[in-house]
This record gives sequence, structure tokens and C-alpha cells, in this order.
Amino acid sequence: MIDRFHIDTDGPGLYEVTAPIAAWVEKQRLREAALTLFVRHTSASLVIQENADPDVQRDLQAFFHRLVPPGSDPSMSYLRHTCEGPDDMPAHIKSALLPVSITIPIFDGHMALGTWQGIYLFEHRNAPHRREIVAQTA
Amino acid sequence: MIDRFHIDTDGPGLYEVTAPIAAWVEKQRLREAALTLFVRHTSASLVIQENADPDVQRDLQAFFHRLVPPGSDPSMSYLRHTCEGPDDMPAHIKSALLPVSITIPIFDGHMALGTWQGIYLFEHRNAPHRREIVAQTA
Amino acid sequence: MIDRFHIDTDGPGLYEVTAPIAAWVEKQRLREAALTLFVRHTSASLVIQENADPDVQRDLQAFFHRLVPPGSDPSMSYLRHTCEGPDDMPAHIKSALLPVSITIPIFDGHMALGTWQGIYLFEHRNAPHRREIVAQTA
Repeated sequence: MIDRFHIDTDGPGLYEVTAPIAAWVEKQRLREAALTLFVRHTSASLVIQENADPDVQRDLQAFFHRLVPPGSDPSMSYLRHTCEGPDDMPAHIKSALLPVSITIPIFDGHMALGTWQGIYLFEHRNAPHRREIVAQTA
Repeated sequence: MIDRFHIDTDGPGLYEVTAPIAAWVEKQRLREAALTLFVRHTSASLVIQENADPDVQRDLQAFFHRLVPPGSDPSMSYLRHTCEGPDDMPAHIKSALLPVSITIPIFDGHMALGTWQGIYLFEHRNAPHRREIVAQTA
Repeated sequence: MIDRFHIDTDGPGLYEVTAPIAAWVEKQRLREAALTLFVRHTSASLVIQENADPDVQRDLQAFFHRLVPPGSDPSMSYLRHTCEGPDDMPAHIKSALLPVSITIPIFDGHMALGTWQGIYLFEHRNAPHRREIVAQTA
């Protein structure tokens, strides 16, 4: 089965999508299957992260902002793809560094996530965007 | 169905493979399936990136060259696996940082790529190499 | 088929798991299938790396320790999630940077790994941990 999930983002950071994906998986009552998630963008990513302390998501966003600073930062003066703003090429770099697809085993109807694992869309652009994740069970 | 794609590379950078993979998928006329791509190397990667402006691919290559400089760079003097040249261990590091496998849902015969998403082999070595990607639909 | 593999770790670094996974795959005598590996943690990763020279694994660990230093390093003073020790938030960052899932095609009963590719659990925490990888063939 295949479906699409949409997330409206409002600036860089992690947006949790575990609950709607878990609900969609569980209503299929699959004994054993695999769930593939795929984000249809080159400036947003999928990550699995700790879902207990919001500081973890904030620190992740802070780390990647330092690892790949905006194009206006002197250290990024070598960039050439700058016409769409200082957050554009760094967003493409982050989308290469972080997953575009994740596959999660399903067992007894549930995703095999660990206790602390949540699924997040990681938005890399500054402006609001509507993002699409394709979810597929097989 | 399973098949192999070969790419002859001539130095570091991104080599697009979207068209031959799309053609192979489309001739299978699959209504719903998943495509797994897997690169059989530890010094080359698979990435999905913006396929409109070649500067994006050049900037990506430039970023990763700065993030993981050649072993001859003073900042990399801690490396021990240096016998195969200054680009060897940095290539292994990049192949850990970037995907070795990507899974893409197929729907109505086509890969569910977003408008701007292209599939690339990312070569990390300086010398020419013949690279192999295993493609599998299921 | 689905199964779980456990790895007892004793500090940061790469722990090879190729042999038990290959044995589990091969006894299933699958002509064509896909293997999904999924690590159920947010402070450990899965990587495919060169399995010939142990210096490669040591250099990888050294690179990631420099890229994401402990929270006690002055460059990491912006971190807020620090209550579980200086290696905790850096471990979450590494688990975002490195794969949580990998899918490997199976052909004629064997994983389609390249000659030099080994599968590793990459432990990011200092204290000993029991780690779990879910393996699934489909």
C-alpha cells in the first residue's frame, strides 16, 4: 500500500511525523512487512531521532547550521549556486548528508522502532514549505 | 527483477544515472513496487540531488572536499590508512557519510521522484574507476 | 523472515557484523530478495565500510570524533541536551549523520556486497551498551 503525508513547515528544524505514520501502518494489520519512507525534495530530509527531549531536536538543528552555514557566511564564499538565497545551497548539502529514504521493518502490525526513536521531517529552508513524504508498505 | 548498472568515472564528482534507471523501471510496467539501489563500493556513494543547475553538483563536491580534505592536508595528519594515496581514506569517510543504498517507491510504473530529484553516483577517488550499482525492484 | 542481532559494545568504534548476518541470509536460500537492516537506537549507527585494514575503522572513528567533538569541547558549548554526559548529544548527532537503515539486494542466496564491503555497527557512546539490529528479508 502506498500513501502520501504532507507537512507544512515554517522554517528550519525537525517536525515529528511518527504518530500519523504509525496510525497508517497499524490500521493495515500487517504481520510482517517493510515500510519505506521517501521525501520528494532536495532541501528537506528524513531522520530518526530521540523523541523525548525537545532540546535534542534543537541541538541537531544548531549543529547542522554550524556544519553547513548560510551562503552569506565567509567560509561559504566558494558556493556558486546562490541565486535562490543564502539558505538554498546549504539546504541541498544537508539533503545529501541526511537520509532521503528510510526503511523500517514492521512486525506484528507495528514499526520496529526502538523506545526512543521518533520519525522527523528535517526542514532546511527558511521560508514556509509544504513537504511530501511517500510511505509504502510491502 | 535485479540488474546492474556500470558507470565509468574520471575523477571526483557527481555522475547522473537517472535516465537509464528510469528506463529500466518503466519497461517493467510495475503498478506498485519499491526500487532499491545499492552501490558496491566503499569509496563512492549514491545521492539524490537537484538536477537542474550543474552548479549544485559542483558545490556539493566542493563542500565535501572541504569537509573531508585529502590526507595531505595538515588537518588530516591523524589518518593511518594512507598507503593508497591521499584521496583514499577521505573517500572511505565520504562513503560512510553519504548513502550506500536508497529505496524509492514506484507507483503507476514510475519512480516517485520529486520534480527536481535526480539520482547520482558520487565518485570520491581521483583515478578513473568502473563503478557498479545494483538495482532491484520488488 | 525477520530476526534480531545483538552486539555488546565497549566504547565508541565499529563492530563488524557481516558474518552472522551473511550466515542468517544464506541459510534461507533465497534466489532473489532484499535484506533490510535497521538499528533500534539513536546513539549508534549502521555503516558499510572497507573490511580489509583495521586502520580504516580507526580512522573513521577518529574523523567523526573530530567532526562532532564531545560536549565538553569549547566548540560545542551551544549544546543544551547535556544532562546525560558529554558523549550523549554528539552520539545523537552522529546517529543523524550516519545510516539507521540499509537495504542490500540478495541474489542467488548471497548479499550483493562488493569485495571490500563489510557491515558494521558504529557505537557512539562511551559506556558499554547492548545494541539491537533488526534484519528482515523480503
